[in-house]
Amino acid sequence: PAFTGNFHLLPGRTNMTVSYTLEVADARFCGFCKLLFRWKGSIYKLLYKDFLLFCGVYLFFSLFYRFLLTPRQQDLFERVALYCDHFTNTSFIPVLFVLGFYVTLAFNRWWGQYTSFPLPDNLMMVVSGNVHGADERGRLLRRTLMRYANLSSVLILRSISTRVHKRFPTLEHIVEAGFMTTHELKNFESLHSDFNKYWMPLTWFSNLASRAREEGRELNKYRGKCSLLFHYDWISIPLVYTQVVTLAVYSFFAFCVVGRQFLNPEKGYKDHKLDMYVPVFTLLQFFFYAGWLKVGELIINPFGEDDDDFETNQLIDRNFQVSMLAVDDMYQNLAPIVKDKHWA
Amino acid sequence: PAFTGNFHLLPGRTNMTVSYTLEVADARFCGFCKLLFRWKGSIYKLLYKDFLLFCGVYLFFSLFYRFLLTPRQQDLFERVALYCDHFTNTSFIPVLFVLGFYVTLAFNRWWGQYTSFPLPDNLMMVVSGNVHGADERGRLLRRTLMRYANLSSVLILRSISTRVHKRFPTLEHIVEAGFMTTHELKNFESLHSDFNKYWMPLTWFSNLASRAREEGRELNKYRGKCSLLFHYDWISIPLVYTQVVTLAVYSFFAFCVVGRQFLNPEKGYKDHKLDMYVPVFTLLQFFFYAGWLKVGELIINPFGEDDDDFETNQLIDRNFQVSMLAVDDMYQNLAPIVKDKHWA
Amino acid sequence: PAFTGNFHLLPGRTNMTVSYTLEVADARFCGFCKLLFRWKGSIYKLLYKDFLLFCGVYLFFSLFYRFLLTPRQQDLFERVALYCDHFTNTSFIPVLFVLGFYVTLAFNRWWGQYTSFPLPDNLMMVVSGNVHGADERGRLLRRTLMRYANLSSVLILRSISTRVHKRFPTLEHIVEAGFMTTHELKNFESLHSDFNKYWMPLTWFSNLASRAREEGRELNKYRGKCSLLFHYDWISIPLVYTQVVTLAVYSFFAFCVVGRQFLNPEKGYKDHKLDMYVPVFTLLQFFFYAGWLKVGELIINPFGEDDDDFETNQLIDRNFQVSMLAVDDMYQNLAPIVKDKHWA
Amino acid sequence: PAFTGNFHLLPGRTNMTVSYTLEVADARFCGFCKLLFRWKGSIYKLLYKDFLLFCGVYLFFSLFYRFLLTPRQQDLFERVALYCDHFTNTSFIPVLFVLGFYVTLAFNRWWGQYTSFPLPDNLMMVVSGNVHGADERGRLLRRTLMRYANLSSVLILRSISTRVHKRFPTLEHIVEAGFMTTHELKNFESLHSDFNKYWMPLTWFSNLASRAREEGRELNKYRGKCSLLFHYDWISIPLVYTQVVTLAVYSFFAFCVVGRQFLNPEKGYKDHKLDMYVPVFTLLQFFFYAGWLKVGELIINPFGEDDDDFETNQLIDRNFQVSMLAVDDMYQNLAPIVKDKHWA
Amino acid sequence: PAFTGNFHLLPGRTNMTVSYTLEVADARFCGFCKLLFRWKGSIYKLLYKDFLLFCGVYLFFSLFYRFLLTPRQQDLFERVALYCDHFTNTSFIPVLFVLGFYVTLAFNRWWGQYTSFPLPDNLMMVVSGNVHGADERGRLLRRTLMRYANLSSVLILRSISTRVHKRFPTLEHIVEAGFMTTHELKNFESLHSDFNKYWMPLTWFSNLASRAREEGRELNKYRGKCSLLFHYDWISIPLVYTQVVTLAVYSFFAFCVVGRQFLNPEKGYKDHKLDMYVPVFTLLQFFFYAGWLKVGELIINPFGEDDDDFETNQLIDRNFQVSMLAVDDMYQNLAPIVKDKHWA
Repeated sequence: PAFTGNFHLLPGRTNMTVSYTLEVADARFCGFCKLLFRWKGSIYKLLYKDFLLFCGVYLFFSLFYRFLLTPRQQDLFERVALYCDHFTNTSFIPVLFVLGFYVTLAFNRWWGQYTSFPLPDNLMMVVSGNVHGADERGRLLRRTLMRYANLSSVLILRSISTRVHKRFPTLEHIVEAGFMTTHELKNFESLHSDFNKYWMPLTWFSNLASRAREEGRELNKYRGKCSLLFHYDWISIPLVYTQVVTLAVYSFFAFCVVGRQFLNPEKGYKDHKLDMYVPVFTLLQFFFYAGWLKVGELIINPFGEDDDDFETNQLIDRNFQVSMLAVDDMYQNLAPIVKDKHWA
Repeated sequence: PAFTGNFHLLPGRTNMTVSYTLEVADARFCGFCKLLFRWKGSIYKLLYKDFLLFCGVYLFFSLFYRFLLTPRQQDLFERVALYCDHFTNTSFIPVLFVLGFYVTLAFNRWWGQYTSFPLPDNLMMVVSGNVHGADERGRLLRRTLMRYANLSSVLILRSISTRVHKRFPTLEHIVEAGFMTTHELKNFESLHSDFNKYWMPLTWFSNLASRAREEGRELNKYRGKCSLLFHYDWISIPLVYTQVVTLAVYSFFAFCVVGRQFLNPEKGYKDHKLDMYVPVFTLLQFFFYAGWLKVGELIINPFGEDDDDFETNQLIDRNFQVSMLAVDDMYQNLAPIVKDKHWA
Repeated sequence: PAFTGNFHLLPGRTNMTVSYTLEVADARFCGFCKLLFRWKGSIYKLLYKDFLLFCGVYLFFSLFYRFLLTPRQQDLFERVALYCDHFTNTSFIPVLFVLGFYVTLAFNRWWGQYTSFPLPDNLMMVVSGNVHGADERGRLLRRTLMRYANLSSVLILRSISTRVHKRFPTLEHIVEAGFMTTHELKNFESLHSDFNKYWMPLTWFSNLASRAREEGRELNKYRGKCSLLFHYDWISIPLVYTQVVTLAVYSFFAFCVVGRQFLNPEKGYKDHKLDMYVPVFTLLQFFFYAGWLKVGELIINPFGEDDDDFETNQLIDRNFQVSMLAVDDMYQNLAPIVKDKHWA
Repeated sequence: PAFTGNFHLLPGRTNMTVSYTLEVADARFCGFCKLLFRWKGSIYKLLYKDFLLFCGVYLFFSLFYRFLLTPRQQDLFERVALYCDHFTNTSFIPVLFVLGFYVTLAFNRWWGQYTSFPLPDNLMMVVSGNVHGADERGRLLRRTLMRYANLSSVLILRSISTRVHKRFPTLEHIVEAGFMTTHELKNFESLHSDFNKYWMPLTWFSNLASRAREEGRELNKYRGKCSLLFHYDWISIPLVYTQVVTLAVYSFFAFCVVGRQFLNPEKGYKDHKLDMYVPVFTLLQFFFYAGWLKVGELIINPFGEDDDDFETNQLIDRNFQVSMLAVDDMYQNLAPIVKDKHWA
Repeated sequence: PAFTGNFHLLPGRTNMTVSYTLEVADARFCGFCKLLFRWKGSIYKLLYKDFLLFCGVYLFFSLFYRFLLTPRQQDLFERVALYCDHFTNTSFIPVLFVLGFYVTLAFNRWWGQYTSFPLPDNLMMVVSGNVHGADERGRLLRRTLMRYANLSSVLILRSISTRVHKRFPTLEHIVEAGFMTTHELKNFESLHSDFNKYWMPLTWFSNLASRAREEGRELNKYRGKCSLLFHYDWISIPLVYTQVVTLAVYSFFAFCVVGRQFLNPEKGYKDHKLDMYVPVFTLLQFFFYAGWLKVGELIINPFGEDDDDFETNQLIDRNFQVSMLAVDDMYQNLAPIVKDKHWA
């Protein structure tokens, strides 16, 4: 599998998502340089189509202005261009501000969603420490409890992550993957509720371990995270906000396409003394602003299939494997306790 | 009901509020484009009336200037317009800043309010796991406890959400809906307090389950959320702040209506070389600034009836249904525990 | 009393503080308009005196310039005015930035203070659920415990809120109001400490309920809030910061009074082509900047007597009444438990 | 002592640090005015030396330009001044931004440090409520436990606060002050560790109260705060950040000293039509920017000896006195429990 | 060792990382001055290579323009330079904004990572207070438990910190250092998992202390911190964001290299009246912007080997030493309890 625990650089580092923390561990000479030449998860990969479109439209207007217009029409075009330019040059369109505030909000939600990801680690330790018995009944109990916990997170992730939904298009697929038995599926389906039923396996957990205070507490935390994930998905940043930001950026570049044309240097318009054909600067601006907007797009829903999105399927596997190991294989499996090296 | 658990895209996704997270799961080419063409919950729906008003006033001044004034009056008008324009073009009116700071504050309160919504999920698990007995007495006890919890949130929501208040105009409506018995209503009304009594059913809960430590803790958290919701409603962002922001935006556009008129290009005023009749740019600015203000308006009280407001009534139903299911139907209802697929 | 629980719009809404959340529940056409026409807690009420002062000084300089100066002096005045204007027009004085950062800090402290307000609700539920006995001794115990808790918050509020201090100028007033007995007052005064003794009644509480784990925990949270309130009051935003902000705003307007005078249009100074007598725009700016500063002033200490300050006295009454109701009147007072409407 | 509990305005208010919250309790006419005329903890006190230096250098260049240079040299000077001015007038040096972001970070750390101050209040209540016995053994136990807790905070404060370090230059001074016995000192010194040993008295506490769950929990919180304080001190804001901010502000004023000279008005340089000798405006700017930087300096380490720094020594005294009172004098010392005034 | 507990200034201060808090304890005259002259961890050390590169390229273009070009080519160069300058002078490239927002995000993550560092202090107190027995078995048990906890943090740090990885390139090195026995290593390796196995020693801990509620809770917190550290490392700030910021800063300086050349003063270009050869101002700007970016680079991964990075190896040693001391040497080792000085 992709997630081997023996990454080429440091052990335990994984190649999930796009992690580059290690490469910038030291602030060296030209530290972030190398990050500019990565393709996977890069701004280039995200933007190149939009960039080509922008260039195409710019080119169209450029050719249009230079070759298709009569001198009189050119005059009009120039005045329109100057008018547009007037507005793109100054701080009229509040691109920067709205982007700054918007991306900061989106970023906070993004990290909030990541830290809401339900991990079974605490629960498995509590189960391993409190549900005893090395016999089959004990093993069965511990494994079933952890399976319920994992099932719940699969159910919630299925409704918010496109990746997980593709993997488990129907509940039968979940049964097949071993997260659920057919009995449980029947049980699950027999309960009619108009609302998302991801919490059901957690109630089974609670019923199975009904007098265990400590498990109850950890279970509630686990359930709280599932629930928070559900709510993050449900309550988006208000559509209006996203529309305002998008409108600002898109209209800014719409004006740029006309306003940033190189006008005939001979006509002596202010700041139009040079015809460079390629508007290097405007293209850079495109990268900054459209790139920043893409950051927002990317992190507004981290459960999609972008390079930078959370590798939900691998996390599900990791959680299931790890919780089975902890409550079953490792149960009461201790190395002999001997004096340590520093014993004095 | 509208909230079916089987949404057309992903299971468990609901059509409550205006959720568009799924559509932007991947940061694709022109990712936010499609969001621009939505009507429900959109900036257009929120703004079109204000927009028409603004256009009307602009048009009035435009016609007034062009056709009704004598040349001498036109001269004066032009000078006034230039004076106004002077102030709308530069960063005199701190629209951007105050909007940015204000909307960020409002946004934090908005998310704070959402996460303060009292959900019975933890409580119902604790009740289901700690209040035993499959007989009628046990069921009665568990159901009554959860009913009290739900009743409390209905009472608090009734005083802050217009939607919920419309559904339950009087306490009798709550009785009718099955959240309260007539006895309880009498009991509730017999206690005279000058202050909101939403906490009473929670005291009943506490009395009924009086020695249960674990329930007590969860109950306190639940009560804390009811209380926080109450306080969010009670303590608004200081009126002065809202007035400052509103004044800034409104006066900005009041100046625009005059200052952004296209003056006679023949008179050679600076930046007035083109008569475009339609002030495209000013209209866009209207969208950005007024739109951002609308975001503030929208999220300052998310318990109203806007498209983007929380669907409180459906949440009440969900909570009641789910808590009854958890403590009654699902009580001790477990599928047979069998070895899982991965048993080795 | 002012706090009746039956407000004219929604039940349980109170007329404390200046709450306008309900009015903006829906983002309607011209949604914030109506907020502009409120007087109580408004920017006009807060600012009108400062505004009149500013107008007066402006008028003085205006008359001085127009009627009292010789042409030569007018020339000098005009040059000074242009010099001043130069600095008010551009972003020299960082009014916006320092205000934005400062008000945001103040706002966070303000909400922090509000959420630190010690409410007895959790404590009263724990007391009601854990201290048993329907006889006089039981009632006495429960009532005394809650009285101690309320006494502590009264003592701390007395030292930070001017309103509460006016209500209880001496400790005898507290005794008279029934929060303390004369014995307790003696006891309180017999202990000599150089430091605020608000925590004493909480120690009595702890002594009285000495083996109760659950109460202990809630008590510690309650005490923590009292303490936090004390510290918010004690450790202000560093004076230097407030002075920098105030200096920036005040000096800005000091320059405006001269720099924004309408100079003789005939002299052809740049941007001085129109003599409008009333500097509409400068007055608006005064509203924005001075208004924003007032927001800061208002929320820097929410325990004063402004319209928008917390209604501490009513909160004290509410807390005392509600805690007595919960531990005494409502103790074990339950409606008969009957099957609910949805019983199947 | 300075900290009397009977402050002249409100009881329990102390004159530690520079608290001005009470004076601005109401947002009155010219509310922040009076704050401008305070000396203690003021911007004037912090800045006057820097201010005089700046004035001196400005004066030097002014005299130099006016009296010492030949006309030809003056011409050169004027060109250099215009070049410098060019950069101070526009937003070239990002003074505002970096200051805004930096001070906000510093402010958050500052408040974080304050709330990390280890207060024994919760611990003393738990000790008082759980360690019983009115006899000497009981008293001894309770007092020793609280002494250990206080000792730990003294040890940690000694290593981060210059004030506390001056008070207790050696460990013997701590013994003398009664926080430690000579036996304990020996014990403390007998343990060799390369690292700060502030946690040792807390281990003694833990050993002495070894089976007490509730104390253990509170103790861990107390220890956590000591530890957090230590880490706040250890991990400063990266030096680079502070240097960037300092460089920006200092270089800004270095340019101002030359660039803001009044050039000969007769030479007709743009914006140099008036020779006012005193650059009022630049001096104000000095106040704003240098003042804001001073805010940063002030709050970056609140354990020094500035007017606004925390009064650590008085807090140590307060904590020790209060904890001894709570666990000893007040132990089981209750006023007779009688019916309260509102008993019905 | 470097970490002696007897630092020259204050006891317990360590020379780890670059701490300068003490030097700025008081906001004195020219308070931050001295910080400008430090080399270790300074902006100069971080930037000097980039700075020299920038100067080199600038110099190259300068010589190129002055000596190698024909007058006609010079003309073209001048026009290109003016075009570039146009964009670097105005706020076209949003360097400031993106840097401000980006560094703030990075700073929050940085402090978040620091506070997630797993410290064994709480755990060791709980172990010392709950696992009894002064005999060998007791000592063995307590030491082994703490060893497991430390082992887990070593394993996680090995995969995120380059320093720790260099110290322990293989698991054998960990055995050698006494954190693990060979038996345990075998046990560790015998469990096959595709994912990072840092949690295994914590499961051993849990198995060894299987009925201890209090330890379980502290253990879960400890494990939570290990896990959070892992996730901070795994989920970087999206690459796109970092690329946008880097592109903005780098392209800004690329334009500066041409646009900020001193053009021939005789040609009378606007703002080019002075040939100073050294572009002092541009170099300063380089320091501010590139310095701010370096701050971001520095704190984005604090587990590298920069001067300012966390001294992970010393922390590991400290944790191991301190936890052994607490549970072994100091176990039940109490000074005789005697009356304190203030006993009355």
